[in-house]
Amino acid sequence: MTQGDIKKVLVVGTGVIGSSWTTLFLAKGHKVIVSDPAPGAKEKLAEFIESEWPRMQRVGAVEHADPGSYQFVEDISTATLDDIDFVQENAPERPDFKTRLIKSLDSRLSKDVIIASSSSGIPSSKFIGECKVAPERVLIGHPFNPPHLIPLVEVVPHPDTSQDAVERAIEFYKSLGKAPVLIKKETPGFLANRLQAAVLTEAYSLVSRGIASPKDVDTAMSTGPGLRWALAGPYATNILAGVASDDPFKHFIEHLGPAVHGWKKDMDEQKFEFREEEVEQLLDNVRPFQQKLDHEGVRSDMGDGLIELLDMKKDKKYLM
Amino acid sequence: MTQGDIKKVLVVGTGVIGSSWTTLFLAKGHKVIVSDPAPGAKEKLAEFIESEWPRMQRVGAVEHADPGSYQFVEDISTATLDDIDFVQENAPERPDFKTRLIKSLDSRLSKDVIIASSSSGIPSSKFIGECKVAPERVLIGHPFNPPHLIPLVEVVPHPDTSQDAVERAIEFYKSLGKAPVLIKKETPGFLANRLQAAVLTEAYSLVSRGIASPKDVDTAMSTGPGLRWALAGPYATNILAGVASDDPFKHFIEHLGPAVHGWKKDMDEQKFEFREEEVEQLLDNVRPFQQKLDHEGVRSDMGDGLIELLDMKKDKKYLM
Repeated sequence: MTQGDIKKVLVVGTGVIGSSWTTLFLAKGHKVIVSDPAPGAKEKLAEFIESEWPRMQRVGAVEHADPGSYQFVEDISTATLDDIDFVQENAPERPDFKTRLIKSLDSRLSKDVIIASSSSGIPSSKFIGECKVAPERVLIGHPFNPPHLIPLVEVVPHPDTSQDAVERAIEFYKSLGKAPVLIKKETPGFLANRLQAAVLTEAYSLVSRGIASPKDVDTAMSTGPGLRWALAGPYATNILAGVASDDPFKHFIEHLGPAVHGWKKDMDEQKFEFREEEVEQLLDNVRPFQQKLDHEGVRSDMGDGLIELLDMKKDKKYLM
Repeated sequence: MTQGDIKKVLVVGTGVIGSSWTTLFLAKGHKVIVSDPAPGAKEKLAEFIESEWPRMQRVGAVEHADPGSYQFVEDISTATLDDIDFVQENAPERPDFKTRLIKSLDSRLSKDVIIASSSSGIPSSKFIGECKVAPERVLIGHPFNPPHLIPLVEVVPHPDTSQDAVERAIEFYKSLGKAPVLIKKETPGFLANRLQAAVLTEAYSLVSRGIASPKDVDTAMSTGPGLRWALAGPYATNILAGVASDDPFKHFIEHLGPAVHGWKKDMDEQKFEFREEEVEQLLDNVRPFQQKLDHEGVRSDMGDGLIELLDMKKDKKYLM
């Protein structure tokens, strides 16, 4: 089976992430079975799809996409799973719960159907313990919120996930217009959350120590390095900075590595460690900014800005 | 003197940074005196201004801006500095050189003229030692490259810089359409370079350890967190994520702080320390990506993308 054969997707769990995945699968022309036992889940899903459909179309829906091409079931045990081609699981982040769920899905699905979990915190090696049929088709497909708009998906195999499953998951996500990346070994925080933790902890250190205000940290990011990072990552940026040389990345590391290392050493000495008094000081220093921030204004401008940014990047074929 | 009174700016040094500052000052309607003793500096500056003027106009030039409204002098000692209102210094990053230069400027300029240094690595306390007239008007005004396009400027006073000088420098940079931020204490790497070092060192760790490819690290950044960071910084993002609560940032720290702390602890254990064998492994792992990268394609798309991104943000008044 190739990704071209995938027609029908099972989405388990319709919280924020599951609803967003459902919207994406529908926009790309797939049929979807969606399950969630929570009261009101069916109505919330319908509202989400309706409200996000116009944005989804702007960011990229196929011509024959049908926002109504899904079947909602409260109880997954009542659903027919014979013709499911791909599973995206978004159940609560509890290893015991996921273990039971994955066991059940594994026993009911044809053995070449990939079971991808949206889990951000639990690697799949922690919930395949009771899979008897085909644990090698289980992996993490961790999106960046909201999945129907943000391209990134982190594909994280467990040690026994098959190469075939990894390749087919990546191909399927690519066919959706996503940007899948491969995390070769299970690693806490995978990739994007580690980059975020690097930035957050330094941002917390600077503000808790009174070096800069929260507003100025935000301004520095979104009027400085953030502008580049929306267009290209650290490696392409380093390579372009060293491009006068035959081996530009080596040139960069040799010339700027010592400065980066020096800054990092100071950062390590001053690092934010979530101690109670540090956290209290941080909260005190952030509150005035929080009070002045127009939450709705920022949310609205960020939402519009994201769509326009994704639209702008479409014709830049050298950017990722 | 308020920033509205600034008419004539002295730019010392016309390397990449000095040429870019000159272009910006001209675009905002100022007269500029530029000095650089290097052979060919005058011609390179003229070429830079001519080639960047169309972009500068798109990002924001005033109506009466004149790209020819500058005077180039090879030897600064021959320039008349009586009517200079602001100095942007971009001389070589050597403390002895800057000490002599700042001493000379300080002795020749009226004592309320701010002397801002573009230095990224040397805090101004290291080069005011021989200022006799008014060391309190000396500070760092560190841009993010290229200064004529990227809004960020880091204003870093030394311990004896006057509050008045800090405020006037910030107002002047704002009047140029820049986004000045204040670094309240001299700190290695100031602010933006620390955020960059946080990301770079984690990116180097992940690739040198074989967790992810350089391409996938870049993709994760520019299709994931980088998209947000171009629009808003870590604090606004955290606050929006916790917004269901009355005290959203506290809610975020309480609920997601432990996960962030856990990822950071693992990152600290695996941190990249620029040891020779780590660097060799990193270079080996980056080279195949470097060889495949279309440097000119990426540079061109990043250049166009930056202009379009800045243009797009203009009408988003809640973003920084």
